[in-house]
Amino acid sequence: MIVVLGGRGYVGQAIQSELQRRGLAFEVFSRARLDYTQPHLLSAALRALPVRFLINAAGYTGRPNVDACERAKAECLAGNAVLPGVVAEVCSDLKLLWGHVSSGCIYSGAGPDGRGFTELDAPNFSFRQNNCSFYSGCKALGEEVLAGRENCFVWRLRIPFNHQDGPRNYLSKLLRYSRLLEATNSISHLGECVAAFVDCWQHHVAPGIYNLTNPGSVTTRQVFQAISDSGVSDRKASFFESEQQFMSVAAVAPRSNCVLDVTKALQAGLQLRPVEEAIADALRNWQWEKR
Amino acid sequence: MIVVLGGRGYVGQAIQSELQRRGLAFEVFSRARLDYTQPHLLSAALRALPVRFLINAAGYTGRPNVDACERAKAECLAGNAVLPGVVAEVCSDLKLLWGHVSSGCIYSGAGPDGRGFTELDAPNFSFRQNNCSFYSGCKALGEEVLAGRENCFVWRLRIPFNHQDGPRNYLSKLLRYSRLLEATNSISHLGECVAAFVDCWQHHVAPGIYNLTNPGSVTTRQVFQAISDSGVSDRKASFFESEQQFMSVAAVAPRSNCVLDVTKALQAGLQLRPVEEAIADALRNWQWEKR
Repeated sequence: MIVVLGGRGYVGQAIQSELQRRGLAFEVFSRARLDYTQPHLLSAALRALPVRFLINAAGYTGRPNVDACERAKAECLAGNAVLPGVVAEVCSDLKLLWGHVSSGCIYSGAGPDGRGFTELDAPNFSFRQNNCSFYSGCKALGEEVLAGRENCFVWRLRIPFNHQDGPRNYLSKLLRYSRLLEATNSISHLGECVAAFVDCWQHHVAPGIYNLTNPGSVTTRQVFQAISDSGVSDRKASFFESEQQFMSVAAVAPRSNCVLDVTKALQAGLQLRPVEEAIADALRNWQWEKR
Repeated sequence: MIVVLGGRGYVGQAIQSELQRRGLAFEVFSRARLDYTQPHLLSAALRALPVRFLINAAGYTGRPNVDACERAKAECLAGNAVLPGVVAEVCSDLKLLWGHVSSGCIYSGAGPDGRGFTELDAPNFSFRQNNCSFYSGCKALGEEVLAGRENCFVWRLRIPFNHQDGPRNYLSKLLRYSRLLEATNSISHLGECVAAFVDCWQHHVAPGIYNLTNPGSVTTRQVFQAISDSGVSDRKASFFESEQQFMSVAAVAPRSNCVLDVTKALQAGLQLRPVEEAIADALRNWQWEKR
């Protein structure tokens, strides 16, 4: 069976749906019932089950957005940098294969050759570069804590979206924010990412770091245009004049905008559609949130 | 009464001795009996006592030395960066004055004017400068987590020593290491530091950051010469040829060597003797560890 940590979050719920869809046995560990941040408790709970794979989707992302992490630094560090190390230690002892949901938000820009950062590029939006949000700093530290672990996948998502309207869906955010920031990004179709997590286990993919964004990149204007073209909304877009204006008016912490190279994931057989196709498909199947 | 977290460590035991010497009521919270890393448990335990002041001497320093932190990153982050934030939050809720034992090892060098770093200088040996040991990075993050807290002392010690031989005493280390690294440092007489902690509370010192090293600085050769002059040991010193040689032969993580300015602590009335005097006094009263 598969154990999921952080099953209540946006990514965690999608993982549960995917495991149900595939008919795979799984259990979600909930912190309310089991404090899995304590190594001995996590270890004992895992020993009591026939666990074959573990997915750590727990983390502190901040609500309503990443700025909240600037005011909850200890929680952000605990959830994003310490917990991965705890899980790694426990899984290492139990010789259990596992995967960690990391973030591509540890990069800024389009990479050394302009074609996106690969898994070999060191994070450049991190505490060590002294240019990041506290959230990104903690996610990068979490990867540092995991460096050299052999039985571990590190999956880097960015700006998840799918066809279901909701407060964590990037497409919904574009539909709801009063003003938008123009930027170029690689983004992640949530359903494809969680399918890739399970494929990593079922298809015996080699452990390691994987960028899991849809191939390519999009600008905010392109995504908004796709929304208009799809008929999901006829809202007109209003954009900040500049990142400076955005930072002074709407944001506390600097935001990561970046392009990732996903060649490694594609070569490993993971299924990620070109980003334009994944966006169009999500909009074609759009479901408004019930209110 | 006073509550001490981390009472079993080198600094924690000295705090207990000082509180006993002054006849002050105190209780040491031990993690074996109370997991004070959990905010609700710490809060409940504090509410049950007439606490007036709390000292957080808990932290992860690595054994036998700071290099161990490079292999225990999650523990190092949890103990040195997350825990201070947990204590801050709980003490803030309870309106309880408290102090955090931090480290001067978040600096490198002698400061912008060569007279030592003051509390206003930003750490320059940290993750944000990307030049530090994992330990120093975590201690600097811990201070970042505490930034802006109003009811909190942050006490920065460096390389503690006193008259009692032991594995954590800097003078003992110089007596035991086979080769030494020549460097210039501000260092802390442990007894004076823990007296300063208690004075901060008893004398109503204004909360904030305080460098707590003995005024001045010393080179490794000067300290070794003082040991020879004192008659405590007639051992001859052997030195590494360079920091490069030290790093390649004896160390994993880069070491902080730095000079601190303690004007703020002295002006607040805290008692710190000139470093040469404190060293000479420790050697005059030297007590070998019983074996």
